[in-house]
Amino acid sequence: MYSDKYLFEFTRDVFEKMGCSRADAVKIADVFIAAELRGLPSHGLIRIKDYFQLWKSNRINVKPEIRIVHETPGTAVVDGDRAVGMVAATMSMEIAIQKASNVGTGWVSTCNSNHYGIAGFYAMMALDHDMIGLCMTNANPLVAPTFSISPMLGTNPIAVAIPAGKQPPFVADFATTPIARGKLAVSEKKGEKVPFGFVQDKDGNSSDDPAILKSGGSMLTLGGDYAHGSHKGYCLSSIVDIFSAVLSGANFGPFVPPSVAYLPVLETKTGEGTGHFFGAMRIDAFREAEDFKSSMDKWIETFRNAKPAAGRERVIIPGDPEREKEAKFKKEGICILPAIVKELKEIAGELGVVFKSNE
Amino acid sequence: MYSDKYLFEFTRDVFEKMGCSRADAVKIADVFIAAELRGLPSHGLIRIKDYFQLWKSNRINVKPEIRIVHETPGTAVVDGDRAVGMVAATMSMEIAIQKASNVGTGWVSTCNSNHYGIAGFYAMMALDHDMIGLCMTNANPLVAPTFSISPMLGTNPIAVAIPAGKQPPFVADFATTPIARGKLAVSEKKGEKVPFGFVQDKDGNSSDDPAILKSGGSMLTLGGDYAHGSHKGYCLSSIVDIFSAVLSGANFGPFVPPSVAYLPVLETKTGEGTGHFFGAMRIDAFREAEDFKSSMDKWIETFRNAKPAAGRERVIIPGDPEREKEAKFKKEGICILPAIVKELKEIAGELGVVFKSNE
Repeated sequence: MYSDKYLFEFTRDVFEKMGCSRADAVKIADVFIAAELRGLPSHGLIRIKDYFQLWKSNRINVKPEIRIVHETPGTAVVDGDRAVGMVAATMSMEIAIQKASNVGTGWVSTCNSNHYGIAGFYAMMALDHDMIGLCMTNANPLVAPTFSISPMLGTNPIAVAIPAGKQPPFVADFATTPIARGKLAVSEKKGEKVPFGFVQDKDGNSSDDPAILKSGGSMLTLGGDYAHGSHKGYCLSSIVDIFSAVLSGANFGPFVPPSVAYLPVLETKTGEGTGHFFGAMRIDAFREAEDFKSSMDKWIETFRNAKPAAGRERVIIPGDPEREKEAKFKKEGICILPAIVKELKEIAGELGVVFKSNE
Repeated sequence: MYSDKYLFEFTRDVFEKMGCSRADAVKIADVFIAAELRGLPSHGLIRIKDYFQLWKSNRINVKPEIRIVHETPGTAVVDGDRAVGMVAATMSMEIAIQKASNVGTGWVSTCNSNHYGIAGFYAMMALDHDMIGLCMTNANPLVAPTFSISPMLGTNPIAVAIPAGKQPPFVADFATTPIARGKLAVSEKKGEKVPFGFVQDKDGNSSDDPAILKSGGSMLTLGGDYAHGSHKGYCLSSIVDIFSAVLSGANFGPFVPPSVAYLPVLETKTGEGTGHFFGAMRIDAFREAEDFKSSMDKWIETFRNAKPAAGRERVIIPGDPEREKEAKFKKEGICILPAIVKELKEIAGELGVVFKSNE
């Protein structure tokens, strides 16, 4: 087990050694550790290797000059200058929050960025400002539109964070596919089949093989099949892609660059890098903040008190499970799998820092 | 068959006879006829009876004083004064568009309104202004949150309309449930079962009975079951509810008033009427409008050219089917079912107008 403080400092030092400024390395480490604490290790330290290798192949820029390239009082397009995604994303969300302070809401579309970790982190940045936060990103193509066999979309997540009063905030953060890509890998390693509705084979037949992507298969959109509304998941994922990439001038759909160095740079570009979209809405741009918060408390209490189905203990408010994990892992420490510890020690060795053994 | 022009004039006259101003009656008729033309008759003339009966029970206000009750340069809360939903919604979206003209984007949350027809209509109002339009509404509770058996949410739709250049616009308009309520009624009338994943029984067991809502059952959120991501549909539907009702001060979740007169007014209120949410984003608040449109054309062409699955003719761009139906029905006319013709004749008789027989 490792303390979140230790993992934060290690991650910060790794990125500082790669050439990031101290301030940027802190931002990056914040997002990585939030993923671990919130129980989303698929977006945690397991990914440091990907960034390290992208850096070694000169595919990310550790000294970016991130800048606004177009703006109005309520909007901006940000050019991430090939930054580590967390750096471009944190700055973009800060701009959205600043604009919301000025005119009620702020909306930023960001191009020329990279994988940014968990979308929920940026949406939650709005909470301390009594704002609703919203964040989306496109991602490398694994998902086929309804009726298609071409992987055209990423798992394109949407995150929305809404402040409450006495209750903890509402925090939704979800891929627009039935499951995240990482879960397929877990099932494959365990030798398990997956339920139908997650993936299809190269001809578009529904499949229960978690390894089907390796033989020309693709993931399906939220809804699973057409009868169950997969076209709605396709709409959602497309909206994320357009807001993140067409508004900003990033690569869209099938042209989003891979977030791992072992996949080659794509030959065709439709823009610059990966795209994200950020929003901040001041709650007092709509109602007195205290009124909103007390009404939001009522909303949360009402839904928390909904009657559970047979065999279910309780009804969950979006954000509950992650917040509970965060409290637990802050207290008890974070477990890093031996294979990841090994990877991190190797990276540490190359960079001249130390990663201590699991305690 | 009826021409859209005839049905428009009839609908306008019906609402004018109920006491709406000519201008309001035109707005209402516009939305009704758009639903018929776009192949969504569940939101078309079949619903005139509901509005007529709500009016007779004094549950909608045909002489509303709709007003902004709170605003910033980029936001507003609108009080719909119990208007017919289409009237409050059209005015709210106009305000969002005006604010977007001023500061880049405009966002309006509306309370004290009623059922407003198809969400896509208002999102599409933004297109002529070279803006992206967004619209949501809450609705009376039929849908249970994940792990719950309490109907707490409506089918809460989301609509997003995005302008393109040479290509027709991208228009997504979908309920946050696998299917719309109306499809259950159709299956029930035909004596058919529905696929599992649409509804559950009063204990939370998945069911294939389309009539299950009558015996304490509830609809499920997009995703269908937890394994397939129903909690993501629950997040989406909740976001729609909070943006529409908690931001505006309308009734939320289980307290949304019924949109039909045969269901009683609820005893508990958490706000005023039904809530909606509207957004408009100027595309040139992010990029030169021509650049955006040409990039959007490329997006649409890329997705239209995705490889179809075996047995599928083509990959659909959101908005394609509705636009094709609109062209066809404008030319060939709109078929109104005999049962609806009968209803409309009765209403016409009571109001002293005429509805002619199907041709």
